[in-house]
Order: sequence, then C-alpha cells, then structure tokens
Amino acid sequence: MMLASFFLLLLTIDGASSEDNCSYQHLFNYLNLSLSSKNDLYTMSRPVKHHNTTLKVYLEVLIYAILDMKETDQTLISYVWIYMSWKNEHITWNPNDFCGLKHIDIPAELLWKPDLTIEEMTEQDKTPSSPYLTINSDGTVERMDYKVLVSACRMQVHKFPFGIQTCNLSFKSVIYNVEEVNLQPHSDSSVATKSSRVLMQTQYEWVFISETVTKTTFDRKNFNQSLIVHTIKMKRRPILYIVNFLLPILFFLCLDLASFLISDSGGEKLSFKVTVMLAVTVMQLILIEILPFSSDRIPLIVVYCIGIFGFMLLSLLETIVVMYLMEKDSASPDEADGDQSLSEDCGDKQGKVNFNNFYRGDINILQASGSQLNFPWVR
Amino acid sequence: MMLASFFLLLLTIDGASSEDNCSYQHLFNYLNLSLSSKNDLYTMSRPVKHHNTTLKVYLEVLIYAILDMKETDQTLISYVWIYMSWKNEHITWNPNDFCGLKHIDIPAELLWKPDLTIEEMTEQDKTPSSPYLTINSDGTVERMDYKVLVSACRMQVHKFPFGIQTCNLSFKSVIYNVEEVNLQPHSDSSVATKSSRVLMQTQYEWVFISETVTKTTFDRKNFNQSLIVHTIKMKRRPILYIVNFLLPILFFLCLDLASFLISDSGGEKLSFKVTVMLAVTVMQLILIEILPFSSDRIPLIVVYCIGIFGFMLLSLLETIVVMYLMEKDSASPDEADGDQSLSEDCGDKQGKVNFNNFYRGDINILQASGSQLNFPWVR
Amino acid sequence: MMLASFFLLLLTIDGASSEDNCSYQHLFNYLNLSLSSKNDLYTMSRPVKHHNTTLKVYLEVLIYAILDMKETDQTLISYVWIYMSWKNEHITWNPNDFCGLKHIDIPAELLWKPDLTIEEMTEQDKTPSSPYLTINSDGTVERMDYKVLVSACRMQVHKFPFGIQTCNLSFKSVIYNVEEVNLQPHSDSSVATKSSRVLMQTQYEWVFISETVTKTTFDRKNFNQSLIVHTIKMKRRPILYIVNFLLPILFFLCLDLASFLISDSGGEKLSFKVTVMLAVTVMQLILIEILPFSSDRIPLIVVYCIGIFGFMLLSLLETIVVMYLMEKDSASPDEADGDQSLSEDCGDKQGKVNFNNFYRGDINILQASGSQLNFPWVR
Amino acid sequence: MMLASFFLLLLTIDGASSEDNCSYQHLFNYLNLSLSSKNDLYTMSRPVKHHNTTLKVYLEVLIYAILDMKETDQTLISYVWIYMSWKNEHITWNPNDFCGLKHIDIPAELLWKPDLTIEEMTEQDKTPSSPYLTINSDGTVERMDYKVLVSACRMQVHKFPFGIQTCNLSFKSVIYNVEEVNLQPHSDSSVATKSSRVLMQTQYEWVFISETVTKTTFDRKNFNQSLIVHTIKMKRRPILYIVNFLLPILFFLCLDLASFLISDSGGEKLSFKVTVMLAVTVMQLILIEILPFSSDRIPLIVVYCIGIFGFMLLSLLETIVVMYLMEKDSASPDEADGDQSLSEDCGDKQGKVNFNNFYRGDINILQASGSQLNFPWVR
Amino acid sequence: MMLASFFLLLLTIDGASSEDNCSYQHLFNYLNLSLSSKNDLYTMSRPVKHHNTTLKVYLEVLIYAILDMKETDQTLISYVWIYMSWKNEHITWNPNDFCGLKHIDIPAELLWKPDLTIEEMTEQDKTPSSPYLTINSDGTVERMDYKVLVSACRMQVHKFPFGIQTCNLSFKSVIYNVEEVNLQPHSDSSVATKSSRVLMQTQYEWVFISETVTKTTFDRKNFNQSLIVHTIKMKRRPILYIVNFLLPILFFLCLDLASFLISDSGGEKLSFKVTVMLAVTVMQLILIEILPFSSDRIPLIVVYCIGIFGFMLLSLLETIVVMYLMEKDSASPDEADGDQSLSEDCGDKQGKVNFNNFYRGDINILQASGSQLNFPWVR
Repeated sequence: MMLASFFLLLLTIDGASSEDNCSYQHLFNYLNLSLSSKNDLYTMSRPVKHHNTTLKVYLEVLIYAILDMKETDQTLISYVWIYMSWKNEHITWNPNDFCGLKHIDIPAELLWKPDLTIEEMTEQDKTPSSPYLTINSDGTVERMDYKVLVSACRMQVHKFPFGIQTCNLSFKSVIYNVEEVNLQPHSDSSVATKSSRVLMQTQYEWVFISETVTKTTFDRKNFNQSLIVHTIKMKRRPILYIVNFLLPILFFLCLDLASFLISDSGGEKLSFKVTVMLAVTVMQLILIEILPFSSDRIPLIVVYCIGIFGFMLLSLLETIVVMYLMEKDSASPDEADGDQSLSEDCGDKQGKVNFNNFYRGDINILQASGSQLNFPWVR
Repeated sequence: MMLASFFLLLLTIDGASSEDNCSYQHLFNYLNLSLSSKNDLYTMSRPVKHHNTTLKVYLEVLIYAILDMKETDQTLISYVWIYMSWKNEHITWNPNDFCGLKHIDIPAELLWKPDLTIEEMTEQDKTPSSPYLTINSDGTVERMDYKVLVSACRMQVHKFPFGIQTCNLSFKSVIYNVEEVNLQPHSDSSVATKSSRVLMQTQYEWVFISETVTKTTFDRKNFNQSLIVHTIKMKRRPILYIVNFLLPILFFLCLDLASFLISDSGGEKLSFKVTVMLAVTVMQLILIEILPFSSDRIPLIVVYCIGIFGFMLLSLLETIVVMYLMEKDSASPDEADGDQSLSEDCGDKQGKVNFNNFYRGDINILQASGSQLNFPWVR
Repeated sequence: MMLASFFLLLLTIDGASSEDNCSYQHLFNYLNLSLSSKNDLYTMSRPVKHHNTTLKVYLEVLIYAILDMKETDQTLISYVWIYMSWKNEHITWNPNDFCGLKHIDIPAELLWKPDLTIEEMTEQDKTPSSPYLTINSDGTVERMDYKVLVSACRMQVHKFPFGIQTCNLSFKSVIYNVEEVNLQPHSDSSVATKSSRVLMQTQYEWVFISETVTKTTFDRKNFNQSLIVHTIKMKRRPILYIVNFLLPILFFLCLDLASFLISDSGGEKLSFKVTVMLAVTVMQLILIEILPFSSDRIPLIVVYCIGIFGFMLLSLLETIVVMYLMEKDSASPDEADGDQSLSEDCGDKQGKVNFNNFYRGDINILQASGSQLNFPWVR
Repeated sequence: MMLASFFLLLLTIDGASSEDNCSYQHLFNYLNLSLSSKNDLYTMSRPVKHHNTTLKVYLEVLIYAILDMKETDQTLISYVWIYMSWKNEHITWNPNDFCGLKHIDIPAELLWKPDLTIEEMTEQDKTPSSPYLTINSDGTVERMDYKVLVSACRMQVHKFPFGIQTCNLSFKSVIYNVEEVNLQPHSDSSVATKSSRVLMQTQYEWVFISETVTKTTFDRKNFNQSLIVHTIKMKRRPILYIVNFLLPILFFLCLDLASFLISDSGGEKLSFKVTVMLAVTVMQLILIEILPFSSDRIPLIVVYCIGIFGFMLLSLLETIVVMYLMEKDSASPDEADGDQSLSEDCGDKQGKVNFNNFYRGDINILQASGSQLNFPWVR
Repeated sequence: MMLASFFLLLLTIDGASSEDNCSYQHLFNYLNLSLSSKNDLYTMSRPVKHHNTTLKVYLEVLIYAILDMKETDQTLISYVWIYMSWKNEHITWNPNDFCGLKHIDIPAELLWKPDLTIEEMTEQDKTPSSPYLTINSDGTVERMDYKVLVSACRMQVHKFPFGIQTCNLSFKSVIYNVEEVNLQPHSDSSVATKSSRVLMQTQYEWVFISETVTKTTFDRKNFNQSLIVHTIKMKRRPILYIVNFLLPILFFLCLDLASFLISDSGGEKLSFKVTVMLAVTVMQLILIEILPFSSDRIPLIVVYCIGIFGFMLLSLLETIVVMYLMEKDSASPDEADGDQSLSEDCGDKQGKVNFNNFYRGDINILQASGSQLNFPWVR
C-alpha cells in the first residue's frame, strides 16, 4: 500500500509535468540528464554502444586572427574557432514528442568529450572555454570554442623579412587510437581558407594566405592515432622592416662608398668611416634582438648586414694602408731631401720643384692627393 | 500512521519556520534553492518554460579605466563594469508573502548564466568574478562584474602619436543562436558615453572620447548569433611623444642645417654631420621599440624620421662631393704651380698672387671657403 | 518500536559523545556545521534573520610592504593584511556548555563571506588565501588574509623623482547595496598609519608616509554602495635618480659651458659639443624608459632634460655661426692681403704685422682666438 | 528480523574482508577514511580531542636551489623542500592488527592541514603540490612538498656585487594563535645548513652560506602567533661583474689618466677624453638596469662609477682651462711679437729665441707642451 | 517479500543489460567504476592487495622538442611525452566475458595515480593534462601525457656558444619510498635516444644529441626513494653567434691592428682607436645580456672579449706614450735648436739638417714616422 501510494505520487508528478511538454526539463528527464546526479553512461566512456565501434569526430578550425608571431620564441599566437561534432549513440529523441525541440544546450561536464590536443601547443589556452555544448535530436553533439592558441612553429628565417611562413596545428587525441577515435575534417582546405579569410578582420603584421587541412595517421609501434593537421600559410608585411632596417643600412653603405671621395690625407676620412661602421654595428644589435639564434643556415639579412659590415672593414683597411704607403712614400723623399740639402748651396727652390714633380706622379699612382699634408719640402 | 506522523513533523517544522517569515531561508525553501542539492531546473538550461521562447539578455558595459594600450602587441587593457540581466521564468514570488523581500542575492553557481564571450578577448580576465548574483521577485536575474579585459585591437599607427583609436568589444554567446539568446543593449550610446565619462576617474595616457553601442547579428550559414558591439573611441595624449621624440629629431635637423655654415675644408664638418646622423639613428631605435611592425602603410612618424635621415644623408653626400671637387680643383692649379715654378726665376711671389685670385673665384662658385687648407702655393 | 530503538541509539551516541564535551566536534554537531553536508543556512545568503537587517562588515587593512610601483604601468604592488569581521546571526553558543570553547576555526567554504572587491585592482591576487576562518561564541566571524594586491594608481609624474604619491584602495561589495552590507572601518586613520608603520619592515624604493581610511557611499541611480577607501601616501627615495640621472646630465651641462673656453677655430669645439649632446641624448633614452607617456603636463624632469638639450643646441648653433662669421671675416682680409701683396715689393713682413694687428682686434670682438687656424698670411 | 539479516550481512562482509587483512582498504575502513564520504572529524578542525590542547607542528625547510635573485624586483626565487608533521589525536592503530602496516599514504584532502603561510611570499607557488600525505600508526601526519618560492627580500645593494645577502622565509599560521598551533623547528640551524648544502647541487650565481632557523612569537595585541624564521645567507659570485663591469670602467680610467700625456694642443685630446667619458656613460646605463632604485644609501659601485665619471669631468675641465690659458698666453706674446717686429730690423731670430725661452717656462708651469700649436713666431 | 522483489528487479536490470554485453557500461558495472559514486578502493591508496607489495611504475619520457633554453634564467623548456604504466591489482577481467574488450579508457580521477614530480621543475606545466587513462584487462594502467616542462638546468657557459649542455629531468615520487613505489625505465637509453630523434621534428637553436636514462636511488636517512634521471645532451647551433658576435669583434681587432699603420702624429689615430674601443664596449653589452652572471669560471667568450678589449687598451696606451715621447723628443731638439741658434750666425740650414738626421733615427727606433707634425725646424 505504501509502495502503491508512492507510485501514485510519481504518476501525479508525471502527469503534472506533462503539461510543460515543451520545456527543456521534460527532455532532460527523458534522457536522464541531471547536473546533481551525473549519469555515468554519458560521462565515463566513448558514447558507443559496441566497444568496437569507431567514433568519428568531425573537426573544423577557422582562424579568426593571427595575433602574434614571435621569431625569437618561435611561437605562433592565433585566435581560432574550433568546432567539433560527434555522435552520441546513447542519446536520441523524437522532436515531435517534445514539442518540436530539435536541439538542447547543456553544461559540458555532463557528457564525454574527446581529449583532443594540439601537438604544437606550448601554453594552456588563455581564454575561458564555453561551459555549454549542444545535443541534436539524432544524438550528434556539437562543441564550439574560441581559443587563443600559443603554438610552437619552426620559422623560416632564411629570407627574413620576406618569405612565406608555414605553421602547423596538429589535432589528435591523447590516448585514443585510430580505431577508437577517428578524426575527420569537417570541411576541405578550400572551404577552410575561404571561411578563415572572411572571418579574419584584423590582419596585423601577417597576411593570411591559406589554410590547408590534411588527414593523416601517426604511427608509433602498434599504436596508430588519427591526426588532422591544419597548415596555416602566411606572409609578413615587410614594409616597415625595409624602411626601418634595410634602408638605413643601405644609407650607411652609400656614405661609406661616398667616403672614397674624401681625401686620404687628414684624419677625417678615418673617423668618418669608423663612425659609419659604428652606426652599422648599432643597427646590427637590433638584428640580434629581432632574429632567433636558431638557424643552421645564415639568414640573408645577416649576410646583407655582415657583408656590408665586412665591406666597410675592407674599405677602411684599404684607406689605412693607402695612407701608410703615401706617408712612407713621402717620408723617403724627405730623407732624400735631407741628404740633398747637404749638397745644396742655395739652389733650394729648384730642388724642391723637382721633387714635387716626382712626388705628384707618385700620388697619382696611389689615386690620392695629399694637399693638406704640410710636407716640409712642399713649400 | 508513520506517514501521518511524518507529515505532522513537516507541518511542525513549517509552523516553526513561519515565525522567521522574513528570513532569506524561507524564500530559498519556497524556491527550492539549495547549495547542497542543486536544482537541475535552474542550472541545466535556459530558464524558459517553452523551448521556443527567446531569452532576452540585457547588457550594459561601462568603461572604468583604459589601463593600457600596447601598440606593439595591438592589445587594449581596459577595466570595465559588466551588467547583465535576464528573466528566469521558473522563479517568481510575491514579496508580500515574504515580509516585503523584493530581491535576494545567491551564489552564482545555483543558476544558469548566459555564456557570453568577447570576440576580441585574448586573455582570461585576471580579476575574480563576483560569487553572487541577484534575483528579483519578478524573476529578473541581475549579474554585475568588474573585469580587466585584455582584448585585441587593430591600431591605426598611421598618424601616431596623433589620431583617434577605435577598439571594439563584441559580446556574443558562444553556442546560443539569436532565437535562443537575444542580446539587448541596456542603455544607448549617449548614456553609455555619459556614464563611462563620469566613472573614468583615472585617465592615463589615453583620453576617452565616446562609447558607441551597436546591436547586430552575426551570420554564418544557418547559424545567426546576436552580437552587441561596444566601440570605444579614444585619443592619445601626444605631448610627451612630441617633447621626447619629435622635438629632439627636429633639433638634430636644425644642427644639420646649421652645419652648412661650417667650412667645407677641414674634417670637422664631416665628423659633425655624421655624428648628428648617428644620433638620429639612435632615436630611430626607439621608434622601432614603440611602433608595431604591422602596418601596410608607412606611419607618418616613420616618414618624418626616415625623411630627415635621408635629407641628412643627401646633405652629407653633397658635402663630400663638394670637398672632393674643391680638392680636385685645388690639385690642378698645384700641378700648374709646379710647372710654372720651373719656368720662373724669381717672380715666385707674383705668380702666386695670380693663382690666388683665380682660385678665390673658383671657391666662390662652390660656395665654400678653404682658408684652412694650407695649400703649399698660398704662401 | 523501530523508531524508539533508533532514538535510543541516538541517545547512546549522544551519551558517549558527552564525554568529549571539550572537542570541536561537539560544537560542530551543535551548530550543524559539516563539510560533507554543507548547511544552506550558512552558505546561501547574508547571515541575518530578518532580510531588512543591515550587515555591518568591519574592515581593517594594514600595509605590510610596498613591493613595487611601476610608473610606466601605473600600478602599485602592495602586500597587505586584510581583516574582516561581521556578525552571523544564526550562530551563537554558550562557551560554558562547551568546556569554555570561545572560538572555533573552520574551513571558509562553510560560511557566507562578503564579496568585497577592490575597485583599483587589476590582477587576481597571487597569494593563496587562508582556507580557514574564525567564529566566536557571540557569532562574530573573523577573516584574515595576506594578499599581494596589484592595483592601478594614477601617478603624479610632474615632480618625478620627487613629490608624494597617493594611491587608493577602495573596498566595496560587488552586488550588495549599502542597506544590505555596510562597510565600517575597524580602526581610524591614525591607528592604521601607526600599525602599518610598525609592520612595514621592508621599505624598498618607497617611504610610507601615512594611511588614511575614509568611509563614503558610492551613488549610482538608486543603487548606493558602501565604500571604504584606504589612501596610501608615500614618497620615493630620490637619491639614486639624482646620482644616476640628474647628476650626469648636470655634468654634461658643465662640459658644454666649459666648451666656451675652447677656441672657436679648429674642429675640436664642434665635435666636442656634438659628442656631449649625443651623450645627453643617450641619457634621454633612459628617461623614456622610466617615465610613462601618460602625462598631460610635461614632467619637470623632462623640462630639465629637454631644456639642457635645447640650451646645448643653441650654444652649438652659436658656435657654428661665430665660426662662420670669423671665417667670412678672415676671408675678406685675405683677399685684401692678396691685393696688397700685389702692390708690395719686399715689405712683406711689415704688411703682415699690420694685418695681424687688425685681425686680432676683430677676433676680440667675436670673443675667440684663432691661433691654430694656420692662416697663410699669418707667417 | 530485517535488521538482524542486515547485521549478518555486515558480519559476512567483515569476515570476507578479514582475509585481505594486509590491504590498505582494511585500515581505511577501520579509520573511517573515505574519499566518497569525507569524515568531518578529520577535515573540519584541528585534530585535537580537547580544544585547549596546543597542536605542535614540526617544520623543516631545506633549500634545494637558489634559482634566482632579482635585485631590481627585490625578490628571491628558491626551490625548497618543506616537511611538516603533526599529531592527529583522532587517528591511531596497532600495526599488528593490520599485518604490520605502519604508515599509509592518503589523498591530502581527507585531513585537516595547518594553514601555514610565508610572510615574505609574493606569488603563489608555481609547482604542483603533492596530492598525498602520510599517516603513521601513532597518528603522526607527515606532509612533504617541493615548492618554488617567490619571496620578497630586502637586498643590501650597498656593497654590490660583493657582500652577503640575508633573506628570510617566515612561516606562520594565518589564523591560529600560538596556543592553537605552535610551530617547532624539526632540526636546528647547523643540521639545516648541512642538509641544504648536501642537497644544493646546482649553485648558480649565488653561493649558499648558511641557513639559520629561529623560533619566535609575533605579538599583535592579544593575538600572538608562532613564527619560524628561516634565514638564508648567501654570497654572490662577483667574478663576472668584476670582469664585465668594474674592469672596463677601470680600463677607461686608465685611458683618461694616460690622456694627460697627450699634447694639450690640437683637438685630439678633447675628443679623446669626451669619447672615453661617453663610454663610461654607456657603462652606467647597465648599472641602472642591474641595480634597484631603492637604496637610501648610495651603493659603493655607484660611488665608484660616478666618482670616476666626476674625475673624468674634472680632468676634462682642467684640459679645457689649460688650453684656454695657453691660447690666451700665446695670444698676448703674439701681440707683443707683432709690436716687437715693428721695431725690429733683422734681429728677428734673436727675439724669437727669447720668447721661446720665456714661453717654455710658462708651459712647464702648466705641465703641457705645445709643440704642435704652429705658433706663428716659432719659425 | 519486499527484498525479494527488489532482488528480482536487480536481476531484471542485469538481464536487460546482458544484451549490450559489448558496451563499456557493462564492464564499468562489473568493475564497480562510477564517476557519480567514486570507488574508494581505486582512489584512496596504492593499488596493491598486500601493503608490503612494491608497486613498479614503468616510465618512458620522449623529447618532442627543445623549445627554449635560457642561459640567463638557467632554464630548459622542453616539450615531452610522458608515458607511465603500473599494475592495479584490484582490476582484472576476462576479455571474452566482455565481447573481446581488451582495454577501456576512463576519466583519470577514478583511479590512484603515482605522485611523480620532476626535481628540476620550476613551473607548473602549462599544457592541459589528458583527462583520461587506459586500463588493460590484466589490470595494467597506462597514462600518457604531453607536457611543456620548465626545468632548471645548470648550464656550462664556459665554452659558450660552443660545448655540449647536459640537462637532467629527475622523476621521483614525492612521498612514496622505494619499497612502496619503484620506478622502472620503460626503455633503455639507446631506444629513448632513437625514439626522441625520430619524434623531434622541430629542432630549433639546439641540436639534440642523446637521451640517457639512469635508475638510481636517492638516500636521505632512512627514507630511500626511487629515481629515474633522464639526461638530455644537446649542442647549440653556434653559427649565428659566430657571425653576429665573434666576427664583428674580430673585425674590430683587425681595425685596431691596422691602426698601427696610421701615423702617430695627428689626432686621427687616437680618435680612431678609441672609437673602435667604444664599438667593442657596445658589443660587450650584448654579452652581458646573453650570458648569466652565475659562473665561477670566466667563460671563454668573456676572456676573448675582455682580452681583445685589454689588448686595444694597451695598444692605445702605447700610442699615447709614443706620441708623448716623440713630442718630448721633438721638444728637446727645439730647445737645443733655440740654444744653438743663439750661437749660430747664418748656418741655420746646415744645423737643421744635422738634427733632422739625428731625429730620423730616433723615430725609427720608435717605429713611427712623424711627417705630419709640423716641427718648426723641419722647414
């Protein structure tokens, strides 16, 4: 009798609730979904009825923005929209029984979710995940998330600041093999590229070129895993690097070249050239800050920089040698001058003229003019 | 009989609790709100009775402070007050039954909350959320929060440090479409601007201009989402950039211009100009630190900088060429001098005077005076 | 009968437990406090019996250390001790019944806590909170916490590195209005200052001056909130800024002034002055790093810096002009010299002396001596 | 009868489980420890039977590594091993009853733990805590943890980079007074020093000297707290600071001293000295980066730096004055020379010699030689 | 009767569920694994039946990438794949009874996990752990995880940027001794090296050489712990350090050597050499940024740098002394010249020649030529 009255009570409650047929609560009761007493059937394991069944997880990743790309850290910071969907075999309902309700949104902790990881990820995502996911009446579960991904990306610094960078985002399950969880791209490369291009309103330093979606399998011994690799191709906007870095160095090269016109005599050529070299050294410091030290090939920009630096060095050395030779040259006539002046009587003026003639030719060979040298005999 | 005594017990308890009619606990019991056994009705899904009902979420965002804005990272750090309110159809009470109690404050985890996200957000908010929310007797739920938002913002660096920046904060639900959750601005642009202006006590580098609230719908295939965009307009205080950056470069330009007065002869003009150029290079390094490399147009400040730099380069090249021509010019008379002195007897003085006269005219053409050149024939 | 035996059992247990009357557990049972089944009465809402009762929350904040104060970020990092106390009307016991037990310490999650926030706070506190709080026998709940606060603080950079800084820490409830939660300062300004001064063992760059406690009400429409503002006054230790920054610039000013003694002729004065100017430019770079760009008034230190820089510029321009005038001046006598030497016969020596006399006077007008100019006629 | 069968069932289960007497589960059942239904007796309060009992908490802290010590932030980052033990009066068992089981390791959340805090701590520890703790059969609970501590430490920068630094780690309970929780050092200073020295394999910039353990009581009004202060003494390895910073400045001082040998005439001495001064200025920039601005006394290294800088300034000023005096000096004889040459006939040579003699003496007074000045009368 | 019907009900449920024999749920029920009511047997303690049993935990660590290695912080950031497996004695099933199900994947919180820590770890791992682990039918539990490890690593900076670095990752349990948890390497050093080499696609600055796995025991008093040390050997790619740092300094050394060819007379040699020295000083600043100050031996690169710097100093001092001696030398003949000219009559020219001869030899001894000195007697 007690039991009977209890069931009566239950029926009464049921009857009362049949009125709000159109409420979410009705469906939750039907599906046995409750936050206060979670259903193990939904949370414990892959939502398949037979354990041999492979669960297909559809994945779509759209790039919203390329926030940053740090050469020195070799990291790509991107803002992506991740969409996953899979079929939960335990869940299904007839929308007609529930007043046309075709999908419900429930707290994400009520269901099993695939444990997707990104192989290149180096930092936990810094944006909060959505606390809800969607279940459709055929059992398809949909999960959407906006994430800031910090991922490692081997940069091609060889052609810096030009050239195209390619970064991978490889999604895979941590523990499920390919027979348990099989990742499927939700849309192909061209669609992903087109969608991402539409979404990407804020293009910063980097110009998005394309997004390629590849489905592969990662083999390790007997443990094969399904892998979806999203390859993002992008190009840097090099204009400010050119204006702020390449141009000034070119300017300094011009100055160094122009310094050939400066007279070898006097200290100004030397100090001019060495100051220009110092300026290039300062520019090179920026290079060390911008570029990572990770290359096995020397980047072209370093070759450009060190080449110009080396050229300046050589031209400076040449200047020093020319000055030295000129001086040595001018020194020997001087000695001769001293010797001659011994044998001279009063013909000082004539002798000087002769030497002057000889000396001028000498200078021409060295391609330099020494008008400021105050040679004692040039009077 | 046992059941009867049980109900009697319940009634007794009820009777006892009717004395503290004015306590919160009484209402909690009535609403079936409990932290120890959470009510699925409140937490599981959108608080509507019929699943077709659209939930209107009113949103107000007031800017308390623009904490920082980093050009290089393209991020805006703002401190905002976010107010949300929506109607929970499952909750309602008559204040008269509860001793005039019109609203209660309960732990936030007891109710469903909209999963609002900010599209531009790049970092999880760093301030703790309020653990409580307010329910009014008509079922309206109010949520208030202070948040430090780190959001991406495409900066206009073209007119740096002048010009107006515009940053968006786009609020939308992650998974609910426009028919499920419809965002409504709580107050219009002019009210938001006025309120924010009153609140913003601490205006740092940036001067808040206005806050515009726009309600749009984001379309993606068949999935439309309600979107409220808060657009913040602000202006930088450029005074210190002018004094610390633009002014010194202008000073150096003055020096470079003044250097035209320095005699072309002697090394001091060259070393002076190249030192001034080095100083401008050092200033340019600051520019590289301040500005992001993300522009497709060259910012005016870079044009200003590289323009002055280029002008200095040209004036330096001109100086070198003039010096070279002067020297070459002075070299040929010298040779002539040598030849002449051969044919001269004692008329050395006269010849020099003639050349000097010729030479002076030459210098005038080159607009430079060579008094320090110690030409051997100028004696 | 079953019920009777059950109550008998309960009594027996009670009898058994009456022996450990002095244990905490006894009181927990009396108060119905349990971690495994939390009491909604304690956790759900403000601990008042009548919902109209205003809860007075006493607050004391003592500054343990001013850890850092970043001018560029405009943030104050302080280490504070926060003490809150309020009365829980649901809890009270007679210590005599519990073996003299006057207060108990329980896990903080068992009770409602006020949702105090600090308006200026920009980062979640980085130190772990205490997991426990204290309840006294009269129902007073005490909470103590050590926190590292990162708060925004508008700095007065006008008198940098001198001047006094004032930072606020405004405590208020997020959702409760002044009629629900009324904040009360636990001690007045003079006591707070005295206590903080005793505690603050580690005074770093900043010297703590005083702590002022103000109780106000924040009005927004019909929503008034209780607010306690702790104003911290402090002073920087300027000694290292003086020695490392102001002194070197003063030294360079001395050098620039001394350079007036250097002969205007020769390139050394120019290169000397421009090098000194370059050094001041380098010092200015530090200024840019130290100071924020957020001022609407130009800080005095920038005026000092740019003033000295401008002075150097003017003195450099003056030098260039003087040199130019001297040269122009010396060029015209030279021509005259050339003309004169035409009419001269052998009286070369005499003529030179005359010109020398004339020239010397000229130099005196320009306040410069040109002994090193090697004027060809000065022989 | 139903109850009887129930007890029978329990006995049967007991009988069955008596077989795995040696399992942990057996003891957990005996102690009533369960993760699914936590025991309030163990988690709610201090594990004492009488509330007057003082709980002695033994603490040992061993330094594994001094990871970093930032002068500018005044923070010490250390990696420590923290061991705590205390007696839980509610737990005890006879190992013989449990197959010799003397200690068990259980999840830490099952027991009350002291709320120890470190007064100097400025950041939440960044390493995960151990999820387990150990209970011995006599009720002693042991907790071990490896932690990276970021703590504030007032550095003595006076003797930088020499001198010994002393940092405190003061452990205390947040809310318990000395009569509730009394901290006891587990081992004395000499043992702690010895242990830490053995553990510290990786000695970086800092050389660990000693660890002193002091037990004190912190008094505030009527609230006394037990405090254990671990004082870490350490010494920097100054070698690289000497080689990279002190040595170069000394080198530049040598250069400045050597510059006294350079002839006062000619611009090279001035430009040489000012360039050396510029180099010292650049070195001083590093100093600003390394040292905090927090000192009330000027660090010796700053005195060293600014002293050498000031000395260079004075020597530079002296050079300028000497040059000025020499020039002035040479200008007046010149005038005299001019006057004299008027009255002279052919005795030019003789007069010059006289002046030369006079002049030489003058130079000797000024300790400078002016051979390169091209004085017009020195022919 | 009621009990009977209850058991009947249970049987019916069992019978119903026997149909989905192949579902995971079936096995979960068999194993008594449930997320809603966690099984204490699985979570509370080491999964051994007799407490004396040692649990062998097999560990494999493969290096996916060496992300970064900061010399200044002495930290290694690596991306590793960690595999652990151990036997849970409480779990076993016959796959045949469960439709061939050989392994299941369950939420990790359902089972006890070893509390492995890495001794060198300095930061909590920044990547999310996998929420699932795998149980095989023989009770073997497998856990896989991808982790970004930030670990302390004492770097050998002596041979920087050459030389091989060795970093340890020492895995051990925090509280379990060797008799409770015994760590076993899953594969030996050669296999680990081979596997890591295959995996490591992205080799950045560092070239992975080998991974050595060592099993030791860490002894502290009576508490011995099992320890597995993974030693990673790697080599830096030094090419960019050579090109960007060593080469420019070498270039400057060349310039300094070449400066010996510059004439000692005139200021240009001095200013040239001191500018080159300044450039080397600037390069040294980079060194200070790159290298940590933690060495007890001076790194070779610092010796290289400071050696070249010292050499430049010496050569500069030598130049100053030579110039001084030359000048002094030239000054004494001058005096002599003055004295001589007193006794001379008209033989001025002859005497000068003699001195010139004497002087030339002198210069040759000093290995310098003084053609530009404008010696008054060399006319």
